[in-house]
Amino acid sequence: MAFQVSVIGSGAENEARAEEVGRLLAERACTVVCGGRGEVMSAAARGAKRAGGTTIGILPGTSRAEANEWIDHAIVTDLGHVRNAIVAATGDAVIAVGGSYGTLTEIGFARIYGRPVVILEPGLQVEGVPRAATPAEAVDYVLASIAK
Amino acid sequence: MAFQVSVIGSGAENEARAEEVGRLLAERACTVVCGGRGEVMSAAARGAKRAGGTTIGILPGTSRAEANEWIDHAIVTDLGHVRNAIVAATGDAVIAVGGSYGTLTEIGFARIYGRPVVILEPGLQVEGVPRAATPAEAVDYVLASIAK
Amino acid sequence: MAFQVSVIGSGAENEARAEEVGRLLAERACTVVCGGRGEVMSAAARGAKRAGGTTIGILPGTSRAEANEWIDHAIVTDLGHVRNAIVAATGDAVIAVGGSYGTLTEIGFARIYGRPVVILEPGLQVEGVPRAATPAEAVDYVLASIAK
Amino acid sequence: MAFQVSVIGSGAENEARAEEVGRLLAERACTVVCGGRGEVMSAAARGAKRAGGTTIGILPGTSRAEANEWIDHAIVTDLGHVRNAIVAATGDAVIAVGGSYGTLTEIGFARIYGRPVVILEPGLQVEGVPRAATPAEAVDYVLASIAK
Repeated sequence: MAFQVSVIGSGAENEARAEEVGRLLAERACTVVCGGRGEVMSAAARGAKRAGGTTIGILPGTSRAEANEWIDHAIVTDLGHVRNAIVAATGDAVIAVGGSYGTLTEIGFARIYGRPVVILEPGLQVEGVPRAATPAEAVDYVLASIAK
Repeated sequence: MAFQVSVIGSGAENEARAEEVGRLLAERACTVVCGGRGEVMSAAARGAKRAGGTTIGILPGTSRAEANEWIDHAIVTDLGHVRNAIVAATGDAVIAVGGSYGTLTEIGFARIYGRPVVILEPGLQVEGVPRAATPAEAVDYVLASIAK
Repeated sequence: MAFQVSVIGSGAENEARAEEVGRLLAERACTVVCGGRGEVMSAAARGAKRAGGTTIGILPGTSRAEANEWIDHAIVTDLGHVRNAIVAATGDAVIAVGGSYGTLTEIGFARIYGRPVVILEPGLQVEGVPRAATPAEAVDYVLASIAK
Repeated sequence: MAFQVSVIGSGAENEARAEEVGRLLAERACTVVCGGRGEVMSAAARGAKRAGGTTIGILPGTSRAEANEWIDHAIVTDLGHVRNAIVAATGDAVIAVGGSYGTLTEIGFARIYGRPVVILEPGLQVEGVPRAATPAEAVDYVLASIAK
C-alpha cells in the first residue's frame, strides 16, 4: 500500500498552500486523505489529482454526493464532525494547513494514535507539535517521520 | 469516481463465493469496499485484486496494520464494531455473503441510507431484502440498481 | 448502578405497548435507555417517568434540545443513525417494540455485544432472537437474563 | 433536565482539583459528565457523588464494567478515543482540568458544538479559550455561560 497522508485545515486563504502540499505528496507517491469537502480539503485533493495522485475523502454526511470533484474514494460516515477522528487516524502522518477547532481535534487524535503531525506556518499553536515553513518542508518532515 | 460496492458477511465457508463476487465486481470496474480483515472480507478483496481491481478496507482498530494484504486503501476508524455502519454507507450498493449479527447491522444501515442490498444464497433471512442465487446474479442486481 | 434496559423500535402504532414497557421497567427499578426522540422512544420514556423512573436518551444530533420531554439525561452524539450502536450497547438488555431497519441494526449490535434481546409481538422477525407476547413477559425475560 | 457539565482532563496530579470541581458542580445541581474511567474522570465523579450529585460516564469500550465506581449512568460506546467527541457534546459546558492530546480533542469538539469551555490553571494552552484560577471560578464561569 502507498503511504497515506492526511491534509487537514480550513480557510480559503490557505488553499494555495494546501494545493501545493497535495501536489508534493502525489509526486512522492503518497495518497492524500482529507475530509472530502471544500477549501483546504478540495485544494489538497486538487493538487494531488493534477499531479496524477490518488485521493480519499472522509465525509461527514450520508451521501458521497457531498464529496468534492477531486475525490477518488469517498468514505461515507454519517458521523458529522466526529469523522475528524477518522481523517486523523487514516493518515500515516498528518499535515495541518491553517484551521480552527476542527483542525485542533484532528491534531489531537493524530497524536493520540501516534501519527507524526506537522503544522505548516502560519497555523495553529499546539504545544509539542513541530512546524514547517513551507509545503516542501512539511512534506519532507512527514515522509522522514513515516520512514523511521 | 468508480462505483463502490460493499461486500459484507463472514464465515470461512463463504470465502469462495465472496472471492467470486470480488472478482466480478472488479471486472465490472467497481471498487470493492469491505471491513478490511479476514474471511469474507479478505476473500472479496483478494478476488478484486486478482482481477486488477481496487479495494477499500474500513478497519475497526487504530492501525492500518490490521488490514489484510489485499487492501489498497485502509480507513482506520477506532470505532470497533460501530464501523459496520461506515462499511454499509460507503457502498453505492451492498452484497451480503453469509454472515451473522454484524452482517445484520450492515444490512440495516444500508437500507437506512437507501443503498440497494442483495443477499447471496444461502444467507441471512431479512424481510424485504432481495436474494440472488449466484455471485453473478448478485453483481448484476446491484449494478442494475445503482444505474437506476 | 441500576440496571439499564434499552427500549428500541418505531411506529406510532406501537406507542401504547412501549409506554407499558417503560412503566414496567421503572417499577422494577431499571433505568430506561432509548434514542431520545419520538414515537416508541418518547412513549417508553414517558411510561418510565410517570412511574417515577429514570431515563437516558442517546441523541443523533448536536443538541440536547432534540430530546423528548421525558428524558432525564441527554447524551449528545452527532453520530446520526450510527448512534443506534450506542443505544444497543448501553442497555444491559434490550427490548424491541415494533421497528424497521434502524431497529434491526440495534438488535444486531445488542447481540454482537452479548446483550440479551427480546422482540415484543408483533415485531420484526430475526432468527435466533426470542419473542414475548406481552410487555410484562418481555420485561420478565430481560430481567431474568440480566440476573444470570 | 439538570444542567450537564463535562469535566475533562487527565493526570494523577490533577485529581484533587477535579474532585473539587465535581463537588462544586453537584452543589450547584449540575450533573457531572466524564469519560467514566480513572484519574481526573473518577475524581470528578467522586466529588460529585460525595456531594449527593449525579454522574454520567461515557465509556470507550464495550462493557459498563469499565466504569469507575462513582458513575451512576454508564454510556457504552465501543468508540475508543472517538468517544471524546461525545463527552464534549454531552456537556452544556466543559471544564478542563489538566490533560493532554485527548483533552485537546475534547476542547476542540466543545467549541465546534458551541459549548462554553474553561481551562483550569495550570492547564493546556489553547488560543481563544478562557482560563480560571480556581475550581470555584471555573464552575462560576460555566454556570454563568450556560445561563446566558
